[in-house]
Order: sequence, then C-alpha cells, then structure tokens
Amino acid sequence: MTLIHPDRLFPADPGTRAIARQLYDSIAGLPIVSPHGHTQASWFARNQPFPNPAQLFVQPDHYVFRMLYSQGVSLADLEIGVAEMKDPRRVWQIFADHYYLFRGTPTRMWLDYAFHELFGLSERLSSDNADFYYDTIAEKLEAPEFLPRALYERFGLEVLATTDSPLDSLSDHRAIRDSGWKARILPTFRPDPVVDPDFAGFRENIAKLGELTGEDSATWKGYLRALERSRARFKELGCTATDHGHPTARTAALSPQAAAELFAAVLRGDADAHQKELFRAQMLTEMARMSVNDGLVMQIHPGSSRNHNRKIYERYGRDVGADIPTSTEYVEALKPLLDLYGNEAGFRVILFTLDESAYSRELAPLAGHYPCLRLGPPWWFHDSPEGMQRFREMATETAGFYNTVGFNDDTRAFLSIPARHDVARRMDCGFLAKLVVEHRLGEDEAFAVARDLTYNLVRDAYRL
Amino acid sequence: MTLIHPDRLFPADPGTRAIARQLYDSIAGLPIVSPHGHTQASWFARNQPFPNPAQLFVQPDHYVFRMLYSQGVSLADLEIGVAEMKDPRRVWQIFADHYYLFRGTPTRMWLDYAFHELFGLSERLSSDNADFYYDTIAEKLEAPEFLPRALYERFGLEVLATTDSPLDSLSDHRAIRDSGWKARILPTFRPDPVVDPDFAGFRENIAKLGELTGEDSATWKGYLRALERSRARFKELGCTATDHGHPTARTAALSPQAAAELFAAVLRGDADAHQKELFRAQMLTEMARMSVNDGLVMQIHPGSSRNHNRKIYERYGRDVGADIPTSTEYVEALKPLLDLYGNEAGFRVILFTLDESAYSRELAPLAGHYPCLRLGPPWWFHDSPEGMQRFREMATETAGFYNTVGFNDDTRAFLSIPARHDVARRMDCGFLAKLVVEHRLGEDEAFAVARDLTYNLVRDAYRL
Amino acid sequence: MTLIHPDRLFPADPGTRAIARQLYDSIAGLPIVSPHGHTQASWFARNQPFPNPAQLFVQPDHYVFRMLYSQGVSLADLEIGVAEMKDPRRVWQIFADHYYLFRGTPTRMWLDYAFHELFGLSERLSSDNADFYYDTIAEKLEAPEFLPRALYERFGLEVLATTDSPLDSLSDHRAIRDSGWKARILPTFRPDPVVDPDFAGFRENIAKLGELTGEDSATWKGYLRALERSRARFKELGCTATDHGHPTARTAALSPQAAAELFAAVLRGDADAHQKELFRAQMLTEMARMSVNDGLVMQIHPGSSRNHNRKIYERYGRDVGADIPTSTEYVEALKPLLDLYGNEAGFRVILFTLDESAYSRELAPLAGHYPCLRLGPPWWFHDSPEGMQRFREMATETAGFYNTVGFNDDTRAFLSIPARHDVARRMDCGFLAKLVVEHRLGEDEAFAVARDLTYNLVRDAYRL
Repeated sequence: MTLIHPDRLFPADPGTRAIARQLYDSIAGLPIVSPHGHTQASWFARNQPFPNPAQLFVQPDHYVFRMLYSQGVSLADLEIGVAEMKDPRRVWQIFADHYYLFRGTPTRMWLDYAFHELFGLSERLSSDNADFYYDTIAEKLEAPEFLPRALYERFGLEVLATTDSPLDSLSDHRAIRDSGWKARILPTFRPDPVVDPDFAGFRENIAKLGELTGEDSATWKGYLRALERSRARFKELGCTATDHGHPTARTAALSPQAAAELFAAVLRGDADAHQKELFRAQMLTEMARMSVNDGLVMQIHPGSSRNHNRKIYERYGRDVGADIPTSTEYVEALKPLLDLYGNEAGFRVILFTLDESAYSRELAPLAGHYPCLRLGPPWWFHDSPEGMQRFREMATETAGFYNTVGFNDDTRAFLSIPARHDVARRMDCGFLAKLVVEHRLGEDEAFAVARDLTYNLVRDAYRL
Repeated sequence: MTLIHPDRLFPADPGTRAIARQLYDSIAGLPIVSPHGHTQASWFARNQPFPNPAQLFVQPDHYVFRMLYSQGVSLADLEIGVAEMKDPRRVWQIFADHYYLFRGTPTRMWLDYAFHELFGLSERLSSDNADFYYDTIAEKLEAPEFLPRALYERFGLEVLATTDSPLDSLSDHRAIRDSGWKARILPTFRPDPVVDPDFAGFRENIAKLGELTGEDSATWKGYLRALERSRARFKELGCTATDHGHPTARTAALSPQAAAELFAAVLRGDADAHQKELFRAQMLTEMARMSVNDGLVMQIHPGSSRNHNRKIYERYGRDVGADIPTSTEYVEALKPLLDLYGNEAGFRVILFTLDESAYSRELAPLAGHYPCLRLGPPWWFHDSPEGMQRFREMATETAGFYNTVGFNDDTRAFLSIPARHDVARRMDCGFLAKLVVEHRLGEDEAFAVARDLTYNLVRDAYRL
Repeated sequence: MTLIHPDRLFPADPGTRAIARQLYDSIAGLPIVSPHGHTQASWFARNQPFPNPAQLFVQPDHYVFRMLYSQGVSLADLEIGVAEMKDPRRVWQIFADHYYLFRGTPTRMWLDYAFHELFGLSERLSSDNADFYYDTIAEKLEAPEFLPRALYERFGLEVLATTDSPLDSLSDHRAIRDSGWKARILPTFRPDPVVDPDFAGFRENIAKLGELTGEDSATWKGYLRALERSRARFKELGCTATDHGHPTARTAALSPQAAAELFAAVLRGDADAHQKELFRAQMLTEMARMSVNDGLVMQIHPGSSRNHNRKIYERYGRDVGADIPTSTEYVEALKPLLDLYGNEAGFRVILFTLDESAYSRELAPLAGHYPCLRLGPPWWFHDSPEGMQRFREMATETAGFYNTVGFNDDTRAFLSIPARHDVARRMDCGFLAKLVVEHRLGEDEAFAVARDLTYNLVRDAYRL
C-alpha cells in the first residue's frame, strides 16, 4: 500500500492515460516557479526548524480547520490562534480522528503527498497511527534537510513570491538577499491595508505609510506619491507584481478633484459603504496607472465576502476560514480601467475569480480580446482537480492557452507547494491528453503546451 | 430486449465501470430512507388501490405533463386537474404517442424502471403497445401486492416523510400510527401557507392556525406561540424536520418590536412586495430560533419563481409545472440567520438550490465552514444523472462528502421512489469509482463512503 | 500526417467511440440546413471569386483577429477595416506566425478543416509554410469550383439564411431568385437598427423605414405598420424568421398609449437609458405580436455588451471583436411577453444565451414548459466542442432533445460552414453514444435522434 500512486489524477481511459503519463514525464522535472503565495520570508531569513506537526499542518491551514469546524470540532480544541500550542499531540489526534472528512478533497491529496514524499509515511493517517505520524514528522522536522532553505532547494523552487503589505519593512527579504543564499524569494506589493477603507486600522495604516515614505499621506497627491515610493521600494527587492483583494472587481475613473475629495472623506472616516466601494474602485485604476509606469504586473483577486462568520471573526480575527465567495461581475466593473489603459503596450493585469460562472461568460472573452489581460489559474476553493478541469474546459476555447499564466499555489502551507504544483501539472497533462486522443491537438503541440503551462507562461506573465 | 440494463448509468470506461458495479452491489440492498417528499399519508392510511395508469403516471407528475405541454399537447386533453378522468385510456394513448419526447431525460429512466420492475413490461412504450401497457398496469393495480402498504414494504422503505401544512389535522398520520402497521411515515412541518404573505388565503390561514392551536394568532406573540405549538404537534407524530419554500434564501434579524409591526402590516394586507419579502426573511430566522429549541432540522428550498405561466395558473392553480428556477444568492441572504445561530451546537439547516452556479461558489464554502449547515442533494430539475454528477463534482472538493445528506426523492410519484434512489446510488457509485481509478480515494474508503451516502448520512442529517 | 483525423472529437473510450462513429456515419451525408448566419447574399448574387487568403480568412473573422489582438498583434498590422488590403501576404505571414495561439480552440478546428478539405493542405500552418499556404489558396480561389455558388453546392447546403436590416433593399436576394439558380438563400428580418434607440443612426433609420414602406414612421401606429410591411416584404423572399440582438432579454407589456408616448420620447432623442431599455423591451413584445400574426419565428440573442473596447470602437466601429457576454436573466425578463403570447398555438420563439449558467437554471425549464419556446444551440463563444457538450449536458434532462432546434453556424466565414456543422454533428453523436453506452437511451433511438438534431428539428423549428 502507498499513499500516492504514480498514475494519480490521470484520466481513466487507458489510451488517454498513456499520453497523459508521457506528457507528465516530460515536465515533471521542471523547476517550480511560484509567483503568488503566502509563505513567510522570515522562514528563509531565519532558517529555523518548523515547529511540531500540529502547528505545521493544522494551525495555519484554513482548508484543514474549516472542514473540521464544519463538522463540530471547536477551534479552541484545535488551538487555533494560539502562538505556542499547549498540547499539539492532542490537536494532531483530533485531526487524525477526522481525517476521513477530507475524502475527495484536494487537501487530502496535498497532505498525503507531503506525508509520503517528505516524511516517508506509507499508511493512511488514522486514529490508530496518529502518534506514529506525530513522532515521525516531529523527528524529521529537526533534521537539517527539513530547514526552510533546504526544503526550498529540495522542492526545486526557482522563484517564490510572498505577499506583503506596503507597511512591511521587507527586512526579511533584505536579509535573505544579504545572506548570499542563491534563491529568488521576492515580495509582492499588496496594498489592501492602505487602499481599502474597510481594512482594520485603515487610517493608522495611511499615517504609517506616510512615515515610512516621507510623504504627506494625508493629502491625495502625497498619498499617491507614498504608494509610488512603496512600489519602488518593493521593486528594488525584486518585486514584479502587485496584488489586490477587493470585494468586487469594480474600477472607477474619477477626475483628480473628485478622487481627492473622496480620499478626504474616506480619511475623515465619514464615507458610507458606497463611497468606500468607489474609493477601492478608484484605487484599482490608480494602481493600473502606476503599473503602466513602473511595469509591475497587477493581480486582481475579487469576490470574497471576508470574515462572514461574525462570532468567529470577533473571537479569532481575519483569515480564519470564514471567507465565502460571491457572484462577481467583471464586464462593467473593469470598463473604466480598461477604457483608460486596456490597450497600453506593456501593461498587464491577471484576473482571478471565485465565481466559476464567469470563466466562459466574462473572463475568457475579456482575456481573449484585451492585450493587457491574462487569466489567473483556478483560485482558492477552485484550486483542485475538478476546479482545474473546469477552468481549462471553460476558458481554453475562447482565451486559448496563451492568455493563461500557469499555476499559482497561493498557499501559506509551505510543505504543500510541491503537491499543489504536481496536481496542476497532472491535471493539465490529462486535459492535453484528452485533446490529443480526440484529435483536437497534435501530440507534438501537446508537449510544447505542457511545457509552456508549467514553466514558460509563468515566467513570461509575471516578468520573472 | 429489456427496458433497464444492469449496468445502466455506470461510466463507460470498463475499468471504472467494474469498480462502480462492485460499489453498487455493496449498497443496492440497503433500505430506502426517504426524508423529504410529497407522497400522501392518506394512501397509507386508507390502503386502497391506486387508480388507472393515466391517473397514476400522467396526471400527478408535472415532469411528465410539462414536457407534453411544451410540445403542444393541451392540458385539457390530458385531463389535468380533473378529479376523476373521463377517458384515461385516451390520455394514456396521448402519453404513449409522445413517449419519445422523454429521450435523454430522467423521467424516462424512472418510468422505464417502474414499468419493468413493477409491472414486468419489457418492450419500450409506444403508440402501438399503449393498450397493452394500459391493460397490464390496470390489472396489476387491483392486486393486493400493489396496495400502498404492500408497495412500501416491497420498496424496502425504512422511513418515508411527507410534507404537510400546519393547518393539516395530520389525521392520516395518526391513523397510520394507530393502525399498528409497522412503518415509519412521518410528517414534515412546512409552514409556507402561514408564513408567506403571498400564499393564497394567507390571512384566513393565520386565523385557522389560531383556531387549531388555541392561540391568538392575530398578535405577533400569539402567532409565534401558535407556530411553536404546531411544531410540537408534528413532533409528537415523529416529525424531525421543517421545510421552507421561499422565493429567495433571504433571512432577517429584526427587533421584536419591528417584527411585530411588520406582522401587523402583513396581516392587515397593506404590506408591499418589499415588506412581504422582509416578513418571509424574518420568519426563516424565527423558524431557526425554534429549531435551536426543539431540534427540528430546517430545510430551505429557495429560488423557484412559482406559477410563472399566468394563464395556466388562472385555469389550473398551483403546482402545474410552470415553476421556473431563478438566480439565487445565499451568502448575504443567510448572514442574519447565521450571525444569530450559525455556531449553535445541535442546530441544523439543509440548503437546497435550483441555481447550480451556487454549488461551488457559495454553498460548498458555506457548508464547509458553518457547523449548522449541510448541503441537500440536487433538487427538482437537477435530480438527474447529469445534475447529480455536477453536484458531486462541484461540491465535494470544498464541502467533502460529510457535509452532504444523501438523497431525497422529493416526489409525488410514489411508484418512482425506488427508481429515483436507484439512479442516485448508481451515480454516486460511478463518481466514487472515478475517484478510485484516478487514485484520488482508496477503494476501501469508496465502499465506506457509498454506504454513508446511501444510508448513514441521511439518518444522521435528518435525525431519523 | 494529416490536418484532420476521421475520429476527431469522438469520445476517447473505444466502446463509446465505436458507437459515435456509427451514428456519425449515418448522418454525415445529410444536407446542411443553415437557418441563421451572417454570410452576404451579394456573394451569391454576383458569384465572383473570393479575394486573397488574408482577406478571406483573417479580416472578416473576429474569432481570428481578437485572439491575435489579445496577444499584442496590432489591428493596423492585420489591415482590419481596410477595404482592399495593401499587403495581404504580410498579414497572412503574421497570422501563420501566431497560429499556435489557436491551439485548443474551435477556430483551429474550423481552419484546419477548410485548409484540408477545400484546399488539400496537409501540413499544419506555420511560419515556414505560410507562403506555400498563401499560394495554394490564392490559386484555388480563382478556379470556378471555388466561386460562391459552386461552394454552396459542394457544401451540400439545402438552405442558407442571411441576416438583414429592414432598411436593406434585399436586391441581392431578389437577384438570386430571379437568376433561376436553384438554391434557397433566405433573408432574416433583424430590426435592431430601427428598434434599438442606441443603434447608430436610429432616428435616421426610422425615417428611412418610413420612406421605404410609405408609412408615417414618425407616429407609433405608422411605425408599427411600417415594421409589418417590412416583414411582409421579407416573407415574400422566403424569410421565415426574425432575429433580435438586444442587450437583455427584457420584454414589456405597455398600454398602447404608454407605448406611443415612449416612442415619441425615444424619437425626440430625450429618452434616458431606462426608457431606451423599456422601449427595446416593448418592441420585443410588439415583434411577438406580429409573429403571432404572420408566423415568422422569433430568435432572441441577448446578453452581449457590444463594443466594450472604447478605443477600438472609436477607431474601427462595430463588430470588431470587442463584444463581451454578460450575466443574462430570462425568467422575469420574458414574463410580460409570455403572459400575452406564451400559450399561443403556432407562435415560436428560439432563445439563445451567452450565459451558460442559464441553461439548466432558466432556459431548459422555460423551454420544457412553454409551447412557444425552443432552445437555440450554443452561441458565439460557446459554439465549440466543450460548449456543445455543456449545452447537451445541462439542457437535455429538462428540455429534452425535442425542445432544441439543431445547429446554427451563425458565421460570416462562409468557408467555415461545413467545418462548423461537422463539429456539431460529431459532438451530438458523441453525446448520444455516451447515453447509449450508459444504457440511458436505446441504440435505435440514438440513430433517430441524431437525424432529428441534424436535419428534422432545424427544418421544423424554422419552418423551412
């Protein structure tokens, strides 16, 4: 018995599977380019061992604990939000007792991959072997080959992008660079804390932005200059992209005066919900303008209703697994931005969605026309075998392969990165194999496309 | 030639089919648990023979006559809405003449199953054999083994829930209980007639509710007490669940005073469309509060635009096949209810949809987080092989299997119950077989999940 | 090596493929009935050679140049909008250099089909063989068997419908009829220029309509009479259908006086966006009323946000590939029209969508009930193998096959017509083969349905 099978995720039909396997074999060894995610630069700056199994696999992974919570396990019992766990072995046991809940989910595949490939475990996690798992993993985590930098190299990472606030000093990124270690760990400029009036501490964040940049961020012009300086600071450390997590994809094209007045209202704190939304919309357009100038690739990640569970949010704060996707409109929402910059040479926006109905209806047609637009890979809840399948089926015929940008692992769970890329590579090869066996694509072309999806398109799209 | 094939609905790939067949064989003999549907308790209370074939198969089945109507057959010719048919053989002939219209539909599979398994017919229904069908079925319907109670037992039913108004005396349910017959036929509390101001006779219904419960239902407090008493009356007869067929999933959290004022306006009849919708929203939240107290499982079935065809409605009334699904939003709609009760231990809400785009976008993420939420099976138009396939493909990766609740047949057509459960079991086994053959799930696990989906999850979700 | 494989598009599973092939063989030779498209009657009236390869394959095909534009090729370099190309060979070379962009798209299949079947080319188009392609195609285009009428016959066309403005003299259609050539090239009545207040030149168009018909089109009654006369003029030349390309599917049922006042406001040019939308809505209902009288089949093609790219529209005008689908609602939108005419015998409306989420949610349930409604085939961006697959999977179980109308090629690219019908026939046969192999449909029935989808339903639906 083994946790992962060499033919996993390939189509059942033997002829198609054979082609998928060949395609996969041709790209399985390519380096991992990870242009978007949520690992911490500090891990690589400090290069200390990861903590115990529970703190590594359960606590930071909202895919894991949201499922446990949905089935009645309390977050307190899982020690969520606790800096140092009191009883990680007990948390691990609870996790193991409920491992059956993940049947049929990508989480299960990612975990099994890490258990097998990194820790040499070969029996499925269960109540009975929870202790054996715990001990095996805990022991290995102490070994030098499990330190963050060693894992970066073992994973075959070529680039790893983090996601960072303009208020971050980026000292960890600087430390990595100054350490002489040959790795590309790059920051990504994510200005939500200073452009979203609903972000906790928004006004204080703006003030801090002014301090950090030496600009008068209390005025509209000073605020924009402060953002431009921040972007420049990120670029110095290798940043090639920005990221924007707005509730909607709405953009706006206000006059400078109207924008300045709106900024003043927002900063005074007397803007209503409509004005806050308009401000976010205007800021996407301002970010686009800056990208036209400085070449940073924009990523737009809209459509999540954040912190939906009021009690959980009050008790645990942001990012605790209670973010729920909503219906997301792109065609009208993006028009103001596209009217201004949609045909600009060198400008690039990567669009993401949590609303799969937009793939074939809005996103593929938009990306199949506007030179600045590319489609990001399936995101978050849709970063899964079936989600990837639907993405290729719904986007390819209108946008083609070449308006997509390869895979994002988008994860906080560093150890899951190889597993996630492996799933994406296998699903793409399965999709291509189907095209080949149905004579919709030449076999020689399928090999070229597999390589492009895995490697070339990512580097090109993110300017890496 | 045979009407139904032993391998029907299993995936085409031979390897996958072999696994699907094994999985199916392991659960085919399990009892049928039917926790939601629209059969009549009176059938089992009286245990009289079903009428002629046309009145059994055509007249009550809106899946059947909506298709005939869509192709130009008049409802008058089908004797829809007629208490006793004048010429059932003629209706049957019309039906047989148009049987080709059902090619590729689940109705066809359900009918063929009943024709074959219950009536021993082996040649496809057509204009030519309509009389033979009619005579064969009519003769058998007179036999003792075709009486409702005999069929209940023959079908292997373990539980059968009906759907009932708070204004119903439940005398049939009481009669079944008092008869000493060993069967579990349970009422379900469906309060639409007394909580939806747009329901025909709403004000009279409220008055009648007061009479039945001895409460002053003209006041907000008395009205709520009357509902609580009604629920208690249902519980006494074994009821474990409520059901709510609102146009939207909207909920509200009004203050008691605002709610009382809204109730007064609604009762006076001077509420506008917005107020009526708000009242329904508030009543979902009131029902949730009562469920937290009395443990009845809530079912929410939103998103049908009822009685869409004005002329048909004026002539034939409700439930004549002119209900059309609409786009349905859950994330904002359910927030008021979830803010109050979303984390309550022991509270349970089963969500249904007619808008498949909500499966992966809203419903699976909600059910994959909130402990009170579970996903109901594909409903109504989506209760079909392809609909079931899409449900599993779109919901499983985020919600897992264990936030789903097994199958509902949800039918008025008693004779179709085994056929419908059989379709669901086969589709689930086919889905699981695909996961096994693609090495996404262990074979041992697939057997366990097949059993859970068929039997354990239903009993657990509905507290049966 | 060959450009097109005899088994292309058939399912991978060998058993299913064998059945698909048999089904396809039984219908491959049927004539092509093309009831909706955008070829030019003038081609057949004049019967002159088509121009050079670039002007034939690149310039008129927005599927082609939108993809090239999305990847940075300028429309100026492609000589889009140029009456006579200056350097068609250079345009062809650019096209060939970027041919890899079409991998996985239907455009690629259509082009390869035409290259192979019409021009005898057997090597995939590339930078290297661009000149050879150009020369081969250019030479053949001069030959008599490549004249429009010869191709019509070679393609096995039985009917070819064009799409025409009420302002068109239809002189080309008349010329074809008078030429004695035995072909059915029929006009379709598309009144957008005179019923959509946002259409360029709307007021002038109304005036011209009055002149053409001898009615006082400045009054509501005269305007309606003018439309009726125009329809009669189209009918004389064989027209059996109308077509309506509104932004939404909205209909209205205004009183005659309210409609007259709205018309006056629209004609004065002081109607706001809401009034313009209401006017279009009312005009759909007026068109329905006229169809009830004159028997013309209505086609409704809603949901495209036209000319989305402002700069491209300002420079190149309409129909240059910057039309983007939007979310489209049908249930409420169509109710006013259906309340009036939904149950009329002999009335027929064919519904199309660019919003695939409406297939199973709204369109199949509507068409599966209302006798006047039929579902048009997958449209525009969804006229592709995966799009066709989704359509059958999502629509069939509720609407059946017999509420659909066969295939539309809907193309300006005359040479792609056989390729497009071939794709549709293959996909339908693959879908039917799956039903057969999963024992959801008898094999004898599949042959009958294949023939109906290819030939009988089209002729019946469009009254040809």
